[in-house]
Amino acid sequence: MPFAETPSPPYVAVIFTSTRTEGDNGYAAMAQAMEERALDQPGYLGIESARDAGLGITVSYWADEQAAKAWKQVAAHLVAQRRGRSAWYTDYRVRVAVVQRDYGLQG
Amino acid sequence: MPFAETPSPPYVAVIFTSTRTEGDNGYAAMAQAMEERALDQPGYLGIESARDAGLGITVSYWADEQAAKAWKQVAAHLVAQRRGRSAWYTDYRVRVAVVQRDYGLQG
Repeated sequence: MPFAETPSPPYVAVIFTSTRTEGDNGYAAMAQAMEERALDQPGYLGIESARDAGLGITVSYWADEQAAKAWKQVAAHLVAQRRGRSAWYTDYRVRVAVVQRDYGLQG
Repeated sequence: MPFAETPSPPYVAVIFTSTRTEGDNGYAAMAQAMEERALDQPGYLGIESARDAGLGITVSYWADEQAAKAWKQVAAHLVAQRRGRSAWYTDYRVRVAVVQRDYGLQG
């Protein structure tokens, strides 16, 4: 299921857009490990992710801002963030947003 | 430049995640036309987009909710939305969110 099963708004979306360095450099393994670790994190609602040659976008969904902030401070994730800045990403943006309303193909 | 040059928060992010039907079916041309048309739309701030085999994510940024809602009602865009529902997307989600804070690789 590529879509995150989020509850009724409001909830928090962390929009992470990034450009990558060449090669994997251990990225895929760490990305999977982080996704599995996030599942155990309080307030984690789900994740959606896509990457093509130009850009990657990962949106993680959280019950509230506190839950999103707590994940940013988890030790294993801090290690991944550090490695991201030094080895995986040539640039990135993080935007923390509160979802106000949502709908899908069925309405 | 794959990143949208957004101003200081708050501003609005419309997160559109989708799965596609097989084949192009006129999608690429319409997507480009819509992106060019959005440039003329009041309150349009920029767009970020990525698609891989599993999922596509497009985030468009707007000055406020009113600007995002107005774009949804533009005639040419209504035609594109209708065609999207019937021909291009097997499923999608739209989430309208207010960005509270943002940061990048440089801080």
